[in-house]
Amino acid sequence: MPRYALKIEYDGAPFSGWQRQKDHPSVQGAVEAALRRLEADCPPIAAAGRTDAGVHALGQVAHADMAKHWDPFRLSEALNHHLKPHPVVIVDVAEVEDSWHARFSAHERRYLFRLLNRRAPAGLRAGKVWQVATPLDVGPMRQAAYSLLGRHDFTTFRASECQADSPVRTLDRLDIEQVSTPLGPEIHFHVEARSFLHNQVRSFVGTLERVGAGAWAPEDVKAALDARDRAACGPVCPPQGLYLAGVGYPQDPFAAL
Amino acid sequence: MPRYALKIEYDGAPFSGWQRQKDHPSVQGAVEAALRRLEADCPPIAAAGRTDAGVHALGQVAHADMAKHWDPFRLSEALNHHLKPHPVVIVDVAEVEDSWHARFSAHERRYLFRLLNRRAPAGLRAGKVWQVATPLDVGPMRQAAYSLLGRHDFTTFRASECQADSPVRTLDRLDIEQVSTPLGPEIHFHVEARSFLHNQVRSFVGTLERVGAGAWAPEDVKAALDARDRAACGPVCPPQGLYLAGVGYPQDPFAAL
Repeated sequence: MPRYALKIEYDGAPFSGWQRQKDHPSVQGAVEAALRRLEADCPPIAAAGRTDAGVHALGQVAHADMAKHWDPFRLSEALNHHLKPHPVVIVDVAEVEDSWHARFSAHERRYLFRLLNRRAPAGLRAGKVWQVATPLDVGPMRQAAYSLLGRHDFTTFRASECQADSPVRTLDRLDIEQVSTPLGPEIHFHVEARSFLHNQVRSFVGTLERVGAGAWAPEDVKAALDARDRAACGPVCPPQGLYLAGVGYPQDPFAAL
Repeated sequence: MPRYALKIEYDGAPFSGWQRQKDHPSVQGAVEAALRRLEADCPPIAAAGRTDAGVHALGQVAHADMAKHWDPFRLSEALNHHLKPHPVVIVDVAEVEDSWHARFSAHERRYLFRLLNRRAPAGLRAGKVWQVATPLDVGPMRQAAYSLLGRHDFTTFRASECQADSPVRTLDRLDIEQVSTPLGPEIHFHVEARSFLHNQVRSFVGTLERVGAGAWAPEDVKAALDARDRAACGPVCPPQGLYLAGVGYPQDPFAAL
């Protein structure tokens, strides 16, 4: 059975999240329905990151096992045809080894969080950014972010329903950047780790926003981390600014040959 | 009667354009309805650029005459409150002289056109870019764009229903840029002039796309311009990639004091 890696972009707004659920639209359900238009018996697919309701993806990666051999380009074209009108698109397809697994082979997840810091509502970016009216000071936010880097017990920044065996993770990157986008200035959070706990990025961003607003001191974030107590976390921020930007593998299956 | 300049951002998708129309939703109608929640007799407003159906704005400028004196910040907050849930936001307000006119005082209009050049549909950018599957070569497009700069009779690039007295305009800028955006690479057209003819930017972009695809030579655009014949124009591109990016005035009314 040939296996294909799919790189998927989606708008999370209309979905209850990546994971297939009974009676609720999901991204996984939309992609599987498109696959089953091509092969009726196509088995369920597995993805690198199970994004929550309202969370977007620029480079989610999943794998699908097909009965027959497909040209990767034709497979992406056929899937995009059947995915309409869902805001889900296959941006790349590659054939991979049977042993390759979208989730278990991944050694890095990269998230982008877009924050719009202005009084006016999000307008053209509605549903795509978190609009924060209070002026934020990025310097203290960066200082606080620094204390989160590295290997820690992240119990404070983990949803109570998180199912991971251990709260210990290694945070490789948490950069806060003031960027000029085609639509105007934004604050971007670039967050990278081998894997994340449930709600970890949104717990980070919601807490760091409090630092930027001056409600928390940068040291308070270190103290919250050390508390290893969910109650010590700042407010979890809303999902619509969050994007699964990409997934890293020992060898990029989509790299041009 | 105090006069206020409003800087307005909007998503053009749900509107039949800027201009108020009977039985069709318009941006002007939405802003006027919000103003009339504040002052029931507020007269109609005038804007710098009458954008077409589906065209967006980052910095449309209009002016409103109010009966009473408003603090500009409070006026913007009150309007944004009443504009919900329309994707229209007031990003700035400034009090201006009685003689200042959003349309007639303007000496420059700046447009941005966003083109997404990839096989996969627009996904997260649906309704915000023009997706073109054919790979485009930007070099010849730039060469062709160069021939449009300056003062010309733009009859070729003007909609048949254009109501301007003269087809002569001076094009100050038509830059084509390959940009890396937070959501991935795009081709941006930056187009500036004192004023534009109806459909002029979309006629330019649709014609230049043909050059990028190799269907037209750069010299064909010069020949089309010289023909002064609407039939010589390339296909007019769709509206959803077009943004009224800003309006220039001898003195920027929104400049911080």
